[in-house]
Amino acid sequence: MGVIAAAICMFGAAIGACVGDAMVISKTLEGMTRQPELSGQLRTTMFIGVGLVEAMPIISFVVALLLMNK
Amino acid sequence: MGVIAAAICMFGAAIGACVGDAMVISKTLEGMTRQPELSGQLRTTMFIGVGLVEAMPIISFVVALLLMNK
Amino acid sequence: MGVIAAAICMFGAAIGACVGDAMVISKTLEGMTRQPELSGQLRTTMFIGVGLVEAMPIISFVVALLLMNK
Amino acid sequence: MGVIAAAICMFGAAIGACVGDAMVISKTLEGMTRQPELSGQLRTTMFIGVGLVEAMPIISFVVALLLMNK
Amino acid sequence: MGVIAAAICMFGAAIGACVGDAMVISKTLEGMTRQPELSGQLRTTMFIGVGLVEAMPIISFVVALLLMNK
Amino acid sequence: MGVIAAAICMFGAAIGACVGDAMVISKTLEGMTRQPELSGQLRTTMFIGVGLVEAMPIISFVVALLLMNK
Amino acid sequence: MGVIAAAICMFGAAIGACVGDAMVISKTLEGMTRQPELSGQLRTTMFIGVGLVEAMPIISFVVALLLMNK
Amino acid sequence: MGVIAAAICMFGAAIGACVGDAMVISKTLEGMTRQPELSGQLRTTMFIGVGLVEAMPIISFVVALLLMNK
Amino acid sequence: MGVIAAAICMFGAAIGACVGDAMVISKTLEGMTRQPELSGQLRTTMFIGVGLVEAMPIISFVVALLLMNK
Amino acid sequence: MGVIAAAICMFGAAIGACVGDAMVISKTLEGMTRQPELSGQLRTTMFIGVGLVEAMPIISFVVALLLMNK
Amino acid sequence: MGVIAAAICMFGAAIGACVGDAMVISKTLEGMTRQPELSGQLRTTMFIGVGLVEAMPIISFVVALLLMNK
Amino acid sequence: MGVIAAAICMFGAAIGACVGDAMVISKTLEGMTRQPELSGQLRTTMFIGVGLVEAMPIISFVVALLLMNK
Amino acid sequence: MGVIAAAICMFGAAIGACVGDAMVISKTLEGMTRQPELSGQLRTTMFIGVGLVEAMPIISFVVALLLMNK
Amino acid sequence: MGVIAAAICMFGAAIGACVGDAMVISKTLEGMTRQPELSGQLRTTMFIGVGLVEAMPIISFVVALLLMNK
Repeated sequence: MGVIAAAICMFGAAIGACVGDAMVISKTLEGMTRQPELSGQLRTTMFIGVGLVEAMPIISFVVALLLMNK
Repeated sequence: MGVIAAAICMFGAAIGACVGDAMVISKTLEGMTRQPELSGQLRTTMFIGVGLVEAMPIISFVVALLLMNK
Repeated sequence: MGVIAAAICMFGAAIGACVGDAMVISKTLEGMTRQPELSGQLRTTMFIGVGLVEAMPIISFVVALLLMNK
Repeated sequence: MGVIAAAICMFGAAIGACVGDAMVISKTLEGMTRQPELSGQLRTTMFIGVGLVEAMPIISFVVALLLMNK
Repeated sequence: MGVIAAAICMFGAAIGACVGDAMVISKTLEGMTRQPELSGQLRTTMFIGVGLVEAMPIISFVVALLLMNK
Repeated sequence: MGVIAAAICMFGAAIGACVGDAMVISKTLEGMTRQPELSGQLRTTMFIGVGLVEAMPIISFVVALLLMNK
Repeated sequence: MGVIAAAICMFGAAIGACVGDAMVISKTLEGMTRQPELSGQLRTTMFIGVGLVEAMPIISFVVALLLMNK
Repeated sequence: MGVIAAAICMFGAAIGACVGDAMVISKTLEGMTRQPELSGQLRTTMFIGVGLVEAMPIISFVVALLLMNK
Repeated sequence: MGVIAAAICMFGAAIGACVGDAMVISKTLEGMTRQPELSGQLRTTMFIGVGLVEAMPIISFVVALLLMNK
Repeated sequence: MGVIAAAICMFGAAIGACVGDAMVISKTLEGMTRQPELSGQLRTTMFIGVGLVEAMPIISFVVALLLMNK
Repeated sequence: MGVIAAAICMFGAAIGACVGDAMVISKTLEGMTRQPELSGQLRTTMFIGVGLVEAMPIISFVVALLLMNK
Repeated sequence: MGVIAAAICMFGAAIGACVGDAMVISKTLEGMTRQPELSGQLRTTMFIGVGLVEAMPIISFVVALLLMNK
Repeated sequence: MGVIAAAICMFGAAIGACVGDAMVISKTLEGMTRQPELSGQLRTTMFIGVGLVEAMPIISFVVALLLMNK
Repeated sequence: MGVIAAAICMFGAAIGACVGDAMVISKTLEGMTRQPELSGQLRTTMFIGVGLVEAMPIISFVVALLLMNK
């Protein structure tokens, strides 16, 4: 059962992180297109945002590693 | 059964946190593009918002740890 | 069965709270972008709103703790 | 079976209450942004609305407690 | 089987009542924002509407109580 | 099997009636906001409409009572 | 099996009739708001429409009664 | 198995006929609101349309009767 | 197994035909509202279209009759 | 197993053909409303299009006949 | 198992080909309505497009025939 | 198990390729309608695009052949 | 179990790659229609984009080959 | 169980990465079409974005390799 549990964790992490990151980066690109002079500020916020979005999937990955060896 | 239960918890936490964070950060980037002079205030609200959104997934992660060792 | 039941509770709580909070905070950020002078009032309402949204997931978390030890 | 039944109840209550509350509060924030002078009246209606929305989930929570001990 | 049946009843009641109430109250708040002078009349209709929406979930709750003791 | 069957009936009745009523009442509130002088006529039609929508769920509730005692 | 079959019939009938009726009545209310002088004609068509929509659910209810006693 | 098969038939017939009829009647009401002088012609087409939509559910009902007695 | 197979056939046929017919007839009514002088031509095309849409469900009904007696 | 397989084939064929045909015919009716003088050409293309859409369901029907007798 | 596998193949082929073809033909009809003088060129591209869309379902049909005789 | 696995592969390939191709070809037809003088260039890109979209389904088809004989 | 696992891999790869490629190529065609003089640059980016999108499905295909022989 | 777990991981990774990459690249192409002079900057951000999106699927792929050999 442990491996299936780890797979469910990684499934959620991969789907969630990809969709979340893509939403953040898409908005950044849209913002850069509309106001090119803000691109530095927007990209900084994008990196912070991607880091915040990635937080939970990384924890989910750690839990997957724990579950795998059960 | 414990590992599957922990995996369901982390699955919900990862999906929920990623989508929730992405919605908050996207709106922040949209706001910064429209009114660059408000970017400091918006980013502060973004950090508060991400913290509030992350609250429940963190609790869900704690529950997952408890369930894992059952 | 108890651990699976607790996991279902936390799953609902995490998904619900994240989506609900994100909707409230997104609208706040949108409102602050449109009318910066109202940001204090909007943020106050946001904190009340997040508190009201979080009410049920917290109860769901308590139920999860009760179910876990069954 | 009792614990699974209680979990289903709390799952519905958490999802329903969060989405319902978030819809009501979002509309309130939208209304306050458009007409700031109505914010008192809107917030009053918001509290009434959240109370009405929360009614059924609270009953669902009571049923969950009853089912848990079966 | 009785407890699962009661849980299905309460699940439908909670989801239905929350979404239904939220739709009615959201429209009321939207209407109050657009025409503040009608707020009394709209709120009256809102109370009637919430009462009508809650009718079936209450019956569903009664059925859940009946099913629980089977 | 009878209790599960009754629960399925009430589930459909609660979801259907809530969503149906909410759609009718929302449109009424929208109409009252746009043309306040028609509010009497709209509210009358709303009561008729809610009555017509509730017809089938009530029958479904009666069937649920019949199925429960099988 | 007969009671489950009857429940599936009533489930479809309740969901279908509620959503169908609500769509018809919503359009009627929308039409009355836009052209109040047509409200008599629209309400007549609404009654015909609700009757036509309810036809199949009533038949479904009859089939449910037949299936229940099998 | 026969009763479950009959229930599946009636489920499809009820959902299909209600949604199909409601779409046709809604469009008729919309058309009558926009061009009141065409209401006779539109209502005639509506009756033809409802008849055509109901054709298959009626056949499905007949099949349900056949399956019920198997 | 034969009766369940026949029910699946009729389920697809009823849902498909109703939705398909409703889409065609709705567009016809929309067209008649916009250009009343074309109503004859549109109605002719509607009859041809409904006939073409109904072709496959009728075949599906024939297959259902064949499967029923297996 | 053969009858269930045939039913799955016909289910896909009926749903696919109905939705596909309805999309093609709806667009034709929309085009005829906008440019009545093109109605001959559009109807010709509609017949070709319906023929092309029906190709695969007919093959699916043939496969269903083959599977039925296995 | 072979007949069920063949049915899954044909199900995917029928749904995919119908929706794909309908999307291509709808766009062609839309284009012909907007620019009648391009109808020849659009219809040629339509035939090529339908051929390309049909490629994979035909292969899927061949695989279904292979699977049927396993 | 091998035939079911092959069927799942072909199901994904058929659905994916049809929807993907249809999206590409629809956009090409839309582009040709808006700018007829670019039709040669757009059609070239369409062929490249269809080829790129078809790449993975073809690999999926090869895998299906491998799985079929396991 | 190995063949089913390989089929799930290829299913995800085929659906993902087709939808992803189609989204990228559609946007390229849309861009070429609006600004024909950028077609070279857009097509270059399209090739890079398709390559990046295809990366994960190719890895998924490799994993499928590994799983097939387990 | 290990191979199924690995397949679930790769399924999530392939779907997530494809949809996420496609969203990012689509926005880049849209931005390049609107402001061609920003294409260098947008493409750089696109590469960073694709790298960030691909992070989690790559980890998911590593977990799949680990699970495969369990």
